[in-house]
Amino acid sequence: MRNFVVVGNRAATTPDFSLEDIPGTSGRIDILCRCINSAFVLSHGIRRDVHVYLILRGGGSPKTIQLRGRDLRHLNPDERTTAALLKKALALEVDSNWTKSTPGIFVRIGDLANLEIFGDGATYYLREDGSDYRGLSSGADGTFVLGDHIGLSEEDEAFMTDLNAAIVSVGPRSLHADHCIVLINNELDRREAANRDESEIDGNGTKE
Amino acid sequence: MRNFVVVGNRAATTPDFSLEDIPGTSGRIDILCRCINSAFVLSHGIRRDVHVYLILRGGGSPKTIQLRGRDLRHLNPDERTTAALLKKALALEVDSNWTKSTPGIFVRIGDLANLEIFGDGATYYLREDGSDYRGLSSGADGTFVLGDHIGLSEEDEAFMTDLNAAIVSVGPRSLHADHCIVLINNELDRREAANRDESEIDGNGTKE
Repeated sequence: MRNFVVVGNRAATTPDFSLEDIPGTSGRIDILCRCINSAFVLSHGIRRDVHVYLILRGGGSPKTIQLRGRDLRHLNPDERTTAALLKKALALEVDSNWTKSTPGIFVRIGDLANLEIFGDGATYYLREDGSDYRGLSSGADGTFVLGDHIGLSEEDEAFMTDLNAAIVSVGPRSLHADHCIVLINNELDRREAANRDESEIDGNGTKE
Repeated sequence: MRNFVVVGNRAATTPDFSLEDIPGTSGRIDILCRCINSAFVLSHGIRRDVHVYLILRGGGSPKTIQLRGRDLRHLNPDERTTAALLKKALALEVDSNWTKSTPGIFVRIGDLANLEIFGDGATYYLREDGSDYRGLSSGADGTFVLGDHIGLSEEDEAFMTDLNAAIVSVGPRSLHADHCIVLINNELDRREAANRDESEIDGNGTKE
């Protein structure tokens, strides 16, 4: 499983934003929409082995929206329809339990530290001064934590340290979170393909 | 210079589309907007060494929109404001000469075969069955031709063959054009950084 966690430091926790001006009215939910596209969208379908967690901190108690690739429906690649799905989720009355919004989309009250996924496999914190993720020998999955345009707070960073998260980067330029997710997905795709090729060699003695 | 050429097979050549439903009314100009984001947007600025050419074939004579990184202004990362910039360009009366719309954005009547950039450096045609671009030893620039959701026509492919374009892919999964552009930019960034490191060694005898 690939988990992408994106922290939206000012992202709206209510549906009171305009689809006609997402960047200006939602605390940059447009960034989160682009991350969803990068995490899930393939040419002919949706990545089923991906979960995305959006941490929304733009007012009142933080909320978390979870998107599960296996169950996702109605996801189009454009920002506006994705923002409309998030708006729908944010209109629900929720507590600290996951409440289903549309197929594959769940929402609850909760912050980064409340996520149960950490510890279940390797955790990576994406930061521009990190080690090159491409060079790291590793499996074909993991949990990847990214900040929006503001980045992670000191408190978040301390939490990452407590988790023993590896600090990684995706290249020599500083990129938006959605571009980083494209690069991580590509690297994991390549590792999966390489593992598949190896197991074919192991299984048959020769590679087809 | 990095050139990205994206063919929009049904993309509107007039401004008669709705910013409230870009995918449904513009012949998928949303795809082209995401390609513009991938080509230019960095965390803290715009890639100045990139040109993008959008080939719009969705009605009447094909048009080409050129975006020049060095001169671009008013480019935000979200789809809607990018679509508004393209709408503005498409509202101009144009002939086969470049007409300036907003800073860094130019438009004219013309198709893929009318572009003057081919032959000036290597040309690459992105196709999912191509050779892995990551493995190809090459310089840190080039011209990259990509199709939208429909891909390139047989005629376009013949044109690519005439140009001796290398057919390349970016990984084991079939991806949207905007994700391919992120991956190409990253690969070129890495090559540039490696070349810089090498020239530092050559120049000083030691690497700083």
